[in-house]
Amino acid sequence: MQLEAVARRLELEQLYTDYVHCLDADELERWPDFFTEDCFYRVTSAENYQAGLPLGLIYATSRNMLKDRVSALREANIYEPQRYRHLVSSLKITADAAGVLDLVANFMVVRTMQDGDMVIFGAGCYVDQVRRDGDSWKFARKNVVLDSRQIDTLLAIPI
Amino acid sequence: MQLEAVARRLELEQLYTDYVHCLDADELERWPDFFTEDCFYRVTSAENYQAGLPLGLIYATSRNMLKDRVSALREANIYEPQRYRHLVSSLKITADAAGVLDLVANFMVVRTMQDGDMVIFGAGCYVDQVRRDGDSWKFARKNVVLDSRQIDTLLAIPI
Amino acid sequence: MQLEAVARRLELEQLYTDYVHCLDADELERWPDFFTEDCFYRVTSAENYQAGLPLGLIYATSRNMLKDRVSALREANIYEPQRYRHLVSSLKITADAAGVLDLVANFMVVRTMQDGDMVIFGAGCYVDQVRRDGDSWKFARKNVVLDSRQIDTLLAIPI
Repeated sequence: MQLEAVARRLELEQLYTDYVHCLDADELERWPDFFTEDCFYRVTSAENYQAGLPLGLIYATSRNMLKDRVSALREANIYEPQRYRHLVSSLKITADAAGVLDLVANFMVVRTMQDGDMVIFGAGCYVDQVRRDGDSWKFARKNVVLDSRQIDTLLAIPI
Repeated sequence: MQLEAVARRLELEQLYTDYVHCLDADELERWPDFFTEDCFYRVTSAENYQAGLPLGLIYATSRNMLKDRVSALREANIYEPQRYRHLVSSLKITADAAGVLDLVANFMVVRTMQDGDMVIFGAGCYVDQVRRDGDSWKFARKNVVLDSRQIDTLLAIPI
Repeated sequence: MQLEAVARRLELEQLYTDYVHCLDADELERWPDFFTEDCFYRVTSAENYQAGLPLGLIYATSRNMLKDRVSALREANIYEPQRYRHLVSSLKITADAAGVLDLVANFMVVRTMQDGDMVIFGAGCYVDQVRRDGDSWKFARKNVVLDSRQIDTLLAIPI
């Protein structure tokens, strides 16, 4: 393994690290910046994903749609105060074609409500594609594939 | 730290990454390939492990026994549909003798049932030994040491 | 990225790895050695941390205070047998000034009681500062910032 490959690997881990710290700190206004302008983002279930069903419960086909989503969230602001904590592991490069990389990674999100109640909010894997953007990487595609089908309560926030 | 040591470290992390993606994708037929032919594999409790008790609730002393186990699982197939998600962290090399490495790593497994119910299925640590096999590594020994003693429901699937 | 930066990154990850294995193995006597002599350590809630409140539910301003804490824990020894398992991810260097590094990392702790009951004991982030100490790193400051305010039951053990 060359130093370049090692450095790229650490850059990719850093991308996921920055991504989850952004979400966990509720800095959602920065969230669209992790994506390319023509990005594809969705939250779906493993069942739908494996069946090849194109839609998800959250679905966007551009960075602007992600910005709109954040604006809507901030304006509505109806949800109970809560904190999210992402744990990510097992990042893997599954394809590498001309600097466009396919990646998978496992995640788990713990939600803590104001009364201290903690639950596993969601578990699953990211099935993503990233592209070089200057000296960093951006998500061109992000599929948040949840192990559970019960994702109606997930509508509120990005994962 | 030399580049060689860095590269080896990333290879070992990749081994655990590939291992858990294999299990989480329910590609159990590939699971025995992560082990040497004369491997030792068991699932046991921390209590039994610390007491030096040799047996575990799942126990195998060769790759062929692991293959048999997968065949039995596929034939029986009595368990309710469910998904597993492994999170792994804190991989550490604890011994290095002539290319045979002792490793520990923490893990947690979240199980999602078909109705969407999510529970922590198990938490604990892997206490493993790996050997070089061509350009990759294989598990010569894998002790899945669960923090809980209540592991009867764990009989079904590999961890 | 230079080899030096890569090596340092892996050293830092190793620090957190060693730290959590020490706690999970209940080797608390070694725990103060992860800190500088004049360290600052506390466990607090995200709410208090963001409000800039200085105190926490566990609070120490030197390595000796950490040692006293471990002694007190061992003497009291009133708590029910239990095991802790830390999962850590998303380590990030947030500042680097003359070899003193600010770091954040996400964590989750699963607690397993003797009867096998498993719960998420705590989730949150470490907000730390580390300093070089010979060929390793030590924590000069460690803020254990819990997402939950309900941390009374956390008084017993270090996180």
